[in-house]
Amino acid sequence: MTKAEIYKHRIKNIRAQLSRQDADALLIARSANVTYITGFLGDDSWALLTKRAVYLITDNRYTEQAQQQCPCCKIIERTEPMTKAVAKLLDKYKSVESVAVENSISIAQLKALRKNVKKRIKPVANMVENIRRAKCHDEAKAIRKAAKIASLALAKALRYMKPGVTENELAGVIELEMRRRGAKVSFDTIVAFGPNASRPHHSSGKRKLKKNDSVLIDFGAKLNGYCCDMTRCFAVGKPGRLFEKVYKAVQEAQTAAIEKVKAGVTLKSVDEAARKVVREHGFEPHGHGTGHGLGLEVHEMPIVGPQSRGKLQIGDVITIEPGVYIPGKLGVRIEDDVFVTQTGCKTLSS
Amino acid sequence: MTKAEIYKHRIKNIRAQLSRQDADALLIARSANVTYITGFLGDDSWALLTKRAVYLITDNRYTEQAQQQCPCCKIIERTEPMTKAVAKLLDKYKSVESVAVENSISIAQLKALRKNVKKRIKPVANMVENIRRAKCHDEAKAIRKAAKIASLALAKALRYMKPGVTENELAGVIELEMRRRGAKVSFDTIVAFGPNASRPHHSSGKRKLKKNDSVLIDFGAKLNGYCCDMTRCFAVGKPGRLFEKVYKAVQEAQTAAIEKVKAGVTLKSVDEAARKVVREHGFEPHGHGTGHGLGLEVHEMPIVGPQSRGKLQIGDVITIEPGVYIPGKLGVRIEDDVFVTQTGCKTLSS
Repeated sequence: MTKAEIYKHRIKNIRAQLSRQDADALLIARSANVTYITGFLGDDSWALLTKRAVYLITDNRYTEQAQQQCPCCKIIERTEPMTKAVAKLLDKYKSVESVAVENSISIAQLKALRKNVKKRIKPVANMVENIRRAKCHDEAKAIRKAAKIASLALAKALRYMKPGVTENELAGVIELEMRRRGAKVSFDTIVAFGPNASRPHHSSGKRKLKKNDSVLIDFGAKLNGYCCDMTRCFAVGKPGRLFEKVYKAVQEAQTAAIEKVKAGVTLKSVDEAARKVVREHGFEPHGHGTGHGLGLEVHEMPIVGPQSRGKLQIGDVITIEPGVYIPGKLGVRIEDDVFVTQTGCKTLSS
Repeated sequence: MTKAEIYKHRIKNIRAQLSRQDADALLIARSANVTYITGFLGDDSWALLTKRAVYLITDNRYTEQAQQQCPCCKIIERTEPMTKAVAKLLDKYKSVESVAVENSISIAQLKALRKNVKKRIKPVANMVENIRRAKCHDEAKAIRKAAKIASLALAKALRYMKPGVTENELAGVIELEMRRRGAKVSFDTIVAFGPNASRPHHSSGKRKLKKNDSVLIDFGAKLNGYCCDMTRCFAVGKPGRLFEKVYKAVQEAQTAAIEKVKAGVTLKSVDEAARKVVREHGFEPHGHGTGHGLGLEVHEMPIVGPQSRGKLQIGDVITIEPGVYIPGKLGVRIEDDVFVTQTGCKTLSS
């Protein structure tokens, strides 16, 4: 499919949903949803989808970029606040009586819309997210490509993993190596040395790498809007007995969860498959979920956790990332990205 | 003031506001507001401020970090969704009848709160933001320190500014150099070569630097939560006549706006001071505002634009960033951060 065909297909899917919601237009505010429908990769822009057209409402910082990136949109360059620009545009559409609005907008934004727009406004949940959840092969390929860049960047950065380097510096080197390969950064890279890794979302700091430290690196590249998300752990010098035991437990837990993955399996059971193995090794499993969806956002639907309802679907791309965290000592997490199929899954991160 | 005293002072200020709003508690969801009140620098955590206590509601990824960073809080480690955790906590407070909630939360979050919390819920606008706007000298110092690191990082990165380097790579080098000096990155660094700079928020890409290119770099370091935001422009090799003329216009426009800055002056007049000079030089002034507040967020109150109402106040920290953009040719913007005083302002970026 050409770029234009992809967006036309997506727009058609949204319009089908929209008519079921009994709304004449959808106002899309969430950045990743705007990208999904229009191709636009900038910020601070909303999309309005009616039965006949799609508009990207942006400002003069982004007009040139929007013209290049959006094959199926009319570009509106606004000079007034966003909600007033939306009102002005909707005023022209006499046939639009009710507008569905994403419920991820803020209360303040809804209030401003209600003040300016003289139509029925109806908050809706996850209309684009539900469609975005099922990735096509091109999207899986984009994530695989991002993961390839991330892996190469890490391999290159390992040369800098010598005693004396700070967490923050190593994070910067990994990000630079991803950029050198044409990617952006999915999220602020987490590098944690030694006991710092027991905080699953440690903020990389000034700590210097010591001999025989363990290292946790959680990182991701973003390519053409698509994110990958990976975690790798290492021991510098001689790995301690505890690190070896924990690493083996987490690795086996990840394998067990990945083996469980296929369309139709409950999310909960994938989560439990990982936890069970960690417990069998005599450790306390991760306090966070075993995985989450990813795509245009680094966290999206579905969540793979102990309280998750629902099942895996064909086209889901999820992380599988069990971990063991022992405060004051170490943390080990191993994270890969998989693409769910009818019969199992394909690993996108190498 | 000690760290604990700073937070106690801020909490006292919020409580004074709260009683004027006729609410018994404030639920704080915006990340920078949570940091301002509690000191916590992680994500996905809310704060609840009652007349007697302040709670940080987080999850097990952040419990250790919260214990280190929050001297005046009780830490609640939640296992259920945020809105249910809030409801559970509020259930214990029989004396709390009405809860003010920041109107920056989403419609979906408000709906979930209304479902779970059996109290009167009252959206409020900018309660913490209004207090955060006035920076104390320690905060200005933090921004100055971040700006110092950013400047040093740029100076170091200039060595890489040679023909052949890509925009994206140069952005990565600047970010690495900021990290080497102990800082984080305020926002995704913008590096734009040649005509790419005519897009004020260009996304750094694969374009390679050519001989006699002009270069625009918009970047910022973040230190202990505080952001700086600066833009610098260069010509590689021999600057063209157009670049020289535009640069002079923008520089004089920035000087004129900075000279205008002092407490009590209208925001609009500062914006206009810059535009007037650009026009006098025969160019079209920037389509974006002349400046914006910054602090714990890289964009906060006030906005300095043609439609701004209100005046500068003592303690405002704002950017002054006029620009000229000529599509297909070049873009020049010069941006510095200033701290507003009674009689003028102090430049925080060197």
